[in-house]
Amino acid sequence: MERLFIYNTLTRNKEEFKAINAPHVGMYVCGPTVYSDVHLGNCRTFMSFDVIYRYLTHIGYKVRYVRNITDAGHLEGDADVGEDKISKKAKLSQLEPMEIVQKYTVGFRDVMNLFNLLPPSIEPTATGHIIEQQQIAKKIIENGLAYDVNGTVYFDVEKFAKSHNYTALTGRKLDELLENTRDLDGQEDKRGRLDFALWIKAKPEHLMQWPSQWGQGFPGWHIECSAMSTKYLGEQFDIHGGGMDLAPTHHTNEIAQNIAYCGKSPANYWMHTNMLTVKGQKMSKSLGNSFLPMELFSGDHELLSKGYSPMAVRFFMMQTHYRSTLDFSDEALQAAEKAFNRLMEGYKTLQHLQSSASSSEDIKALERKCYDAMNDDFNTPVLIAHLFEALRIINSANDKKTTLTQVDIELLKTIYKHFVFDVMGLKTEEEGNNKAGTALEKVMNLVLDMRTKAKANKDFATSDQIRDKLSEAGIQVKDGKEGATWTIN
Amino acid sequence: MERLFIYNTLTRNKEEFKAINAPHVGMYVCGPTVYSDVHLGNCRTFMSFDVIYRYLTHIGYKVRYVRNITDAGHLEGDADVGEDKISKKAKLSQLEPMEIVQKYTVGFRDVMNLFNLLPPSIEPTATGHIIEQQQIAKKIIENGLAYDVNGTVYFDVEKFAKSHNYTALTGRKLDELLENTRDLDGQEDKRGRLDFALWIKAKPEHLMQWPSQWGQGFPGWHIECSAMSTKYLGEQFDIHGGGMDLAPTHHTNEIAQNIAYCGKSPANYWMHTNMLTVKGQKMSKSLGNSFLPMELFSGDHELLSKGYSPMAVRFFMMQTHYRSTLDFSDEALQAAEKAFNRLMEGYKTLQHLQSSASSSEDIKALERKCYDAMNDDFNTPVLIAHLFEALRIINSANDKKTTLTQVDIELLKTIYKHFVFDVMGLKTEEEGNNKAGTALEKVMNLVLDMRTKAKANKDFATSDQIRDKLSEAGIQVKDGKEGATWTIN
Repeated sequence: MERLFIYNTLTRNKEEFKAINAPHVGMYVCGPTVYSDVHLGNCRTFMSFDVIYRYLTHIGYKVRYVRNITDAGHLEGDADVGEDKISKKAKLSQLEPMEIVQKYTVGFRDVMNLFNLLPPSIEPTATGHIIEQQQIAKKIIENGLAYDVNGTVYFDVEKFAKSHNYTALTGRKLDELLENTRDLDGQEDKRGRLDFALWIKAKPEHLMQWPSQWGQGFPGWHIECSAMSTKYLGEQFDIHGGGMDLAPTHHTNEIAQNIAYCGKSPANYWMHTNMLTVKGQKMSKSLGNSFLPMELFSGDHELLSKGYSPMAVRFFMMQTHYRSTLDFSDEALQAAEKAFNRLMEGYKTLQHLQSSASSSEDIKALERKCYDAMNDDFNTPVLIAHLFEALRIINSANDKKTTLTQVDIELLKTIYKHFVFDVMGLKTEEEGNNKAGTALEKVMNLVLDMRTKAKANKDFATSDQIRDKLSEAGIQVKDGKEGATWTIN
Repeated sequence: MERLFIYNTLTRNKEEFKAINAPHVGMYVCGPTVYSDVHLGNCRTFMSFDVIYRYLTHIGYKVRYVRNITDAGHLEGDADVGEDKISKKAKLSQLEPMEIVQKYTVGFRDVMNLFNLLPPSIEPTATGHIIEQQQIAKKIIENGLAYDVNGTVYFDVEKFAKSHNYTALTGRKLDELLENTRDLDGQEDKRGRLDFALWIKAKPEHLMQWPSQWGQGFPGWHIECSAMSTKYLGEQFDIHGGGMDLAPTHHTNEIAQNIAYCGKSPANYWMHTNMLTVKGQKMSKSLGNSFLPMELFSGDHELLSKGYSPMAVRFFMMQTHYRSTLDFSDEALQAAEKAFNRLMEGYKTLQHLQSSASSSEDIKALERKCYDAMNDDFNTPVLIAHLFEALRIINSANDKKTTLTQVDIELLKTIYKHFVFDVMGLKTEEEGNNKAGTALEKVMNLVLDMRTKAKANKDFATSDQIRDKLSEAGIQVKDGKEGATWTIN
């Protein structure tokens, strides 16, 4: 097994990864709240953990990857005031909340499929675990770290903090936190201003509510993740992930809940993905600089000159390490698209390279570097740099400037298979477009034959016609020593 | 609004459809049990209700379509003995039950997508409604029609039958039912042999269990549908559907539960789809004559000579009315594929028909016949016959044997759009294969141009080469008065 190092938010250090019960790995990632279209920042988080899931699996771990769907209980703001977001939208549009949930869950899955994310092992829903959430709240009350007031159950942060490090995940000081937190209207029942709700009393008009020993209500947001991670991965598991915006409140409270419930901090490694910016500015709806995945694909947005394929966007995201800010711009996407197409063209070229008796390049060492990059906290940008070194070698061998043995050619194919396709989860655009794609390959062979013939016959009218029509069809032809190759834009 | 007639299993009559609260329609269909690959019979049922959903929507109803996912509680056999099917498989494969659920739910969705089924409005799960199921069981006990024995809650069928018609749905005689039902081991707690479980006590080793007022347990199979239909559609709604094998037990018990719970029979119209046969024999695993959807698509089955596209299979299924037995054979599939391709080719031809000052055909009457077919209990085979009449007119107009005004040409396009695409849910095979498909269209224009030129120049070497290569690419060219058209096989 590879020696893998992971940056752990909890210790603020890169640490060697030791699975609790190798080769099994339990990984929990906070999933989407399905009351609106999934935004690009979420896509980046889930794509990052998709690569982590893929790499762990590739190096031999058996990963149980749980990513939840929040279909209830997520309040506006983290302060537990206001209405449940899903119910609110339901009232406005006269829909049943679960209709909204279905609409955006289907949309979420479509986007995940387009981005070629593997489905997680389990995708549990908050509404599917109401009983489990009630049981945890009950146990925390029994353990003296929560209290119920008028049908709402609060977690007692200050009492918890007396015997535990409440802010372990972020390293912030509790005093400062207390000073910077305001008392909020409608929260007069709370004993301390940092206390948060485990279970919330429902007003009669609230659309999503369930019976409980504290009366009709619905779960707080944080408790669903404690309930679902514990149920499917146990009280202690290996990796917990999410966007870095979740660390200060949601994940901090999740850890507190788990300790208060069973005395154990849930995960050994906490991993957080960084945020998105657009030309250096925070991506936000109010700034008008945020785009939805579907707008990226169609190009239907004023900041975009054209649409980008899901694979080009995936490649673009992989070019930045998951812990760094990812900056979007039309120019950067264009550059990524070109680089991605070149990388994929290299794979085609690789299929008909001619082997030599000896190699002038060390492909084995290159493969090692790819593993080393991924072992260093899943460093995809460094991995991509090595893959472009592989591409340079392939093109150089194609131009007869480099020699490769058949074994090394096969190893290059393996590197592509493992790192480009399996680990980074990229795929050629044509894949899946079976019939039309296959027919196009064959028809293009015919067209390129006729072009060669026309050129040989000095029939320039025909060869010009072919060039123009192919260009109109978005097909670029490139002449090489081994004959012409082509790509679709 | 169209006058629609629906065959109602409950009354054994075709009745005019009257929505309780038009234009709203509530429709509930029993969905898949996700512990194995979805079988073709289920696909047929869901496809039939997809067409019903599409047609109701097309004629102006606002349909809330609920199709559940059974992810717990479905026992082996309907007799409530044996283990929960999902837990059993989990123990064998050392998987968490919800991992099995996820695997087969994802597979189910993939097949539904390939068959171009619209997602239902809500897809609730059994595990997501444990509390609701417990509440219904509790209420039925309070109403005196269920009893709990040692942690299991049974529905008292004979007591219910004293004041209600238990077998209303099938019209069977209760006495015969009693005579033909055996007492089963492990069911000694039941008062009557027809009694069925609403809640089942769990053995400690049972993997899926929840706390309840009767102790740890899990819900019976039938109660989930009562809980979910009531929650999302109310105590009385319009249409309840499923495979006809569900009528005698599952649906009969569901009706009894609802009446015992709230005094109301849930649905006004009960619709049941018929079974599949293969060359006249019942499709079954043990006879070796059953195939999975994916085997149909790949052709990887000894009874199949080739693979069939999802749309060809969908068309094939539509050729039989949903209440008739659907007989599968390789020959019938081949014939359906050809017919489907001809129908789709007609749509292409339609795009470049030349209009005349008058029409020699009555297209308006033809459109009326399409509606009449669907209004007659969703009679898709009759609809298809009318669509082939439309095809005949299109081809005849293309051959200048029939004249059509521009208005009638547009109306034919509307008929295709409404009935072929919107209502029957068919689509051209190339759709979705965007890039390669679009490029292929353009490259084919070039190739057909060059073919015309070669023929004009009597350059038969070239025109033969084009013919051979296109045939190799699976492309069939057909010459017509308006120029050549082509299709991919």
